[in-house]
Amino acid sequence: MPLAQSAKSRGIRVYHLNIGDPDIETPPVMLDILKRWKTSPIGYGLSQGEPEFIDALQLYYRSIGFGFLHTDNIQVTVGGSEAIFMAMFGVGQPGDEIVVFEPFYTNYNSYAAISGIRLVPIRTHIRDGFHIPDTRTIEKSITKKTRAILYCSPNNPTGTVYTQKEVEQLVGIAQKHGLFLLSDEVYREFTYDGKKHVSLLSYMRDIPEQAIVLDSMSKRYSLCGARLGALLSLNSQIMEGVLRIGQGRLSAGVVDQAMAAQLIRLKPSYYASIRREYEKRRDLLYSGLSAIPGVVIPKPEGAFYTIVGLPISDAEDFCRFLLTDFHDRGETVMLAPAAGFYASKGSGANEVRIAYVLNCEKLTRCIEILRKALKQYQRKHS
Amino acid sequence: MPLAQSAKSRGIRVYHLNIGDPDIETPPVMLDILKRWKTSPIGYGLSQGEPEFIDALQLYYRSIGFGFLHTDNIQVTVGGSEAIFMAMFGVGQPGDEIVVFEPFYTNYNSYAAISGIRLVPIRTHIRDGFHIPDTRTIEKSITKKTRAILYCSPNNPTGTVYTQKEVEQLVGIAQKHGLFLLSDEVYREFTYDGKKHVSLLSYMRDIPEQAIVLDSMSKRYSLCGARLGALLSLNSQIMEGVLRIGQGRLSAGVVDQAMAAQLIRLKPSYYASIRREYEKRRDLLYSGLSAIPGVVIPKPEGAFYTIVGLPISDAEDFCRFLLTDFHDRGETVMLAPAAGFYASKGSGANEVRIAYVLNCEKLTRCIEILRKALKQYQRKHS
Repeated sequence: MPLAQSAKSRGIRVYHLNIGDPDIETPPVMLDILKRWKTSPIGYGLSQGEPEFIDALQLYYRSIGFGFLHTDNIQVTVGGSEAIFMAMFGVGQPGDEIVVFEPFYTNYNSYAAISGIRLVPIRTHIRDGFHIPDTRTIEKSITKKTRAILYCSPNNPTGTVYTQKEVEQLVGIAQKHGLFLLSDEVYREFTYDGKKHVSLLSYMRDIPEQAIVLDSMSKRYSLCGARLGALLSLNSQIMEGVLRIGQGRLSAGVVDQAMAAQLIRLKPSYYASIRREYEKRRDLLYSGLSAIPGVVIPKPEGAFYTIVGLPISDAEDFCRFLLTDFHDRGETVMLAPAAGFYASKGSGANEVRIAYVLNCEKLTRCIEILRKALKQYQRKHS
Repeated sequence: MPLAQSAKSRGIRVYHLNIGDPDIETPPVMLDILKRWKTSPIGYGLSQGEPEFIDALQLYYRSIGFGFLHTDNIQVTVGGSEAIFMAMFGVGQPGDEIVVFEPFYTNYNSYAAISGIRLVPIRTHIRDGFHIPDTRTIEKSITKKTRAILYCSPNNPTGTVYTQKEVEQLVGIAQKHGLFLLSDEVYREFTYDGKKHVSLLSYMRDIPEQAIVLDSMSKRYSLCGARLGALLSLNSQIMEGVLRIGQGRLSAGVVDQAMAAQLIRLKPSYYASIRREYEKRRDLLYSGLSAIPGVVIPKPEGAFYTIVGLPISDAEDFCRFLLTDFHDRGETVMLAPAAGFYASKGSGANEVRIAYVLNCEKLTRCIEILRKALKQYQRKHS
C-alpha cells in the first residue's frame, strides 16, 4: 500500500486489481433510504440484528430455495469478517484446529490468531483448478484437535466453484468425523458458464448441528463499506454462543441495516445483471491473460478473483516492480502476490491474485500493461 | 429482555432505565449527510479510519486542549466496544491480568473472555461514592501477570467522576509498576456541578508508552447505532498492533464515519446544552429518589448512570417483579440489577443501576412508579 501511495504521488495512475472492492453501483433503492432518513437519535440496534433486516434476509434465503431458515437461525454480523470471527470462536477453544484449503482468504488467519485456533492448511493446486483433493488426503489432516472444516465457494482467492460432489464429500467427512462444516458463501451469486452454486444450505438439515454458513452483503450489493454479513445455523447452542459475542459489541450499524433491508425490493434480474457483468470481465481477463506467453490461468468459475501463474520466479518482487520501477504511459497495475494466501511457506511464489473488479475498458488496459510489464521484467532478469 | 417483551405484549408500557441509549437527537448536521449521500458503490474504508473522520477527531481533541495528538495516534473503532477489545488484545496475552474497579461496565468481561485476559476487580463502595481506594490497596491486586489498569471516568455504571488526585494516583501507579493505563472516557463531556473532567490525555505525554484512551461517538453525539469509537495512544507499537486488528475487519462503516465527521460543525454550545439537559435529569432523579425512604443514592457526578441502594435484599428479584408482577396504571420501569456490574459474587445484591436517558417528564413518572413498586414489593416480602 505505501508503494502504491508513492507511485500515485509520482503522478502514476494505479489500477487496483489487488482488492475485492467492486466498482458496480450499490442498488439505488438502498441509497434512497439514506435520503429519506428520519430516525433520530440513532440508537442501538438489537444484538442479533434489526428485525427488519433479519426478515429481509429470511425472505432472500427463501427466494433461493431455503425457506426452512427461521429468524432464529440468522445472526447479523458486522461484515463477513465478524461472521468468520464468530464462527471460529463459536466452534473452537484456544489450541483447537480448523482445516482449510490453501490458498485461502488471508483474514482467516487474523481471526484464527485472535481465537487462538490453529489453521491446518490442505494444499490445492493451480493444475487442478484449485479443486479439493480426495477424502483420504483430507482425512490425513484431521486430528483429535480438529473442530471444523472451513471452505469457501465460489472461492476467494482462486475463483473455483466447488461441485456438488465436492460439497457432498465435505458433508460426508464432517458427518464421519463429527466436525463442524463452515461454508463461506460470500460470492454465492457469482458463478459463470451457467454453473449453479451448490450451497451448504442444501445439506443443512442433514447435519443440522454441524453446518454453519457465513455470508456477507459486501459483494452481492456493493456494500463493502456498510459492514454487514450474516451467520446461519440450525444449531441453537451455536446461535446462543454467537449472540453472546454479538451482545459484547451491542449491535451492528442500524443505518447500514436499514439500507441492506431494501434487498427485498430487488428483482432476480438484479442478480442476473451483476453476474453477466462479471462473466464478461472474466471472459476478457481469461482470454487476454491466456494469450500472454508463459502465463498459467485456470478458467475462473466464480467469484471475481483468479490466481494466475506468471513466467517469473518471484511474484512479490514483480508486484513491487510494477509499483516502483515500471509504468506504461504513466499507468500501472497493483496485484496481490499469491504467497500471502498460502500458509505453507514458499507456496505460490510465482503466482498473483487478480480481482477483476474494474470495468472491461479498464481491464483491457490492465492486461496490456501487465503484458508489457512482464516483458520488461523478464528482460531485466534474464 | 424477554420479561420486558412479555410485559409489553400484555399491553404494559415499559420505561427503559436499564440501558444507556440516549433519547437526545443526533445533531441534524450529521443526519443531513445522509440526505445528501452521493457516493456509490459504498466501498471499503481504510482500516485505520476514513481520513476525513480522523481529521475531525484530531480537531475535536485539539479543541479540548490536546493538540499534540497526530492522526497517527488515532485508530477509529467499531464502537467503543472495539476500542475495549483492541486495547485488551493490544496490551495483554492470554493469561495476563488487567486491574479494574468494580462495579464496572459489563462488556469489559466479554472482551476479557475473548482475549483470554483475567480481570482483577478492586472493590469500590457506594458509601465512598465509588471513588477509588488508596494506592496501597490498589497495589495489593498487582501481580507479575498484571499488564494494565483499566478505569472509566465519568463512570458507567456509578456516575462517579475521578478527581485530578485520583487520575494522578493511577498515573503514578502505572509509572511505578510499568503498567499500561487504559482510560475509558466515553462520557468525557458529561460532568455536572461545574466539575471539570480530568482526562488521561492531560498526562499522556508523561507516560507516552503506557497511556491508552478509549473513546466513543455513541453518547456524545447520540450515535449509539452508528458504531463508532476511537483508541488513542502515543505508543507506536500499540498503534501498529491495533491497526493489524483493524485490518482483519477491513474497515469501520463509511456512511457512519461520514456522519460523525460532521462533528467539526458543532459549536461548544452543543456540548453545553446536552450537559445542561443531563444535569437537570440528574437533579430530578437525585432529589426524587433521595426522598424515597430507605433508598441510598450517592449524588451522581457525571455520565448518565447512578447506582442506587434499595431497601430490599434482592434487587434482581425486584427488577423481575417490576416486569412480571407490577404495573401502575399500565406502566412500569425496567432497571439493571447492579450485581451484573460486580465481578465479586454477592456484591451489589441490593443495588440497581439507573440510566437517566429519558426526559424529565418521563423520569418524574419513573420515580413515582418506582416509589409505588418498592412499597408494594416490601409489603409482599414482609
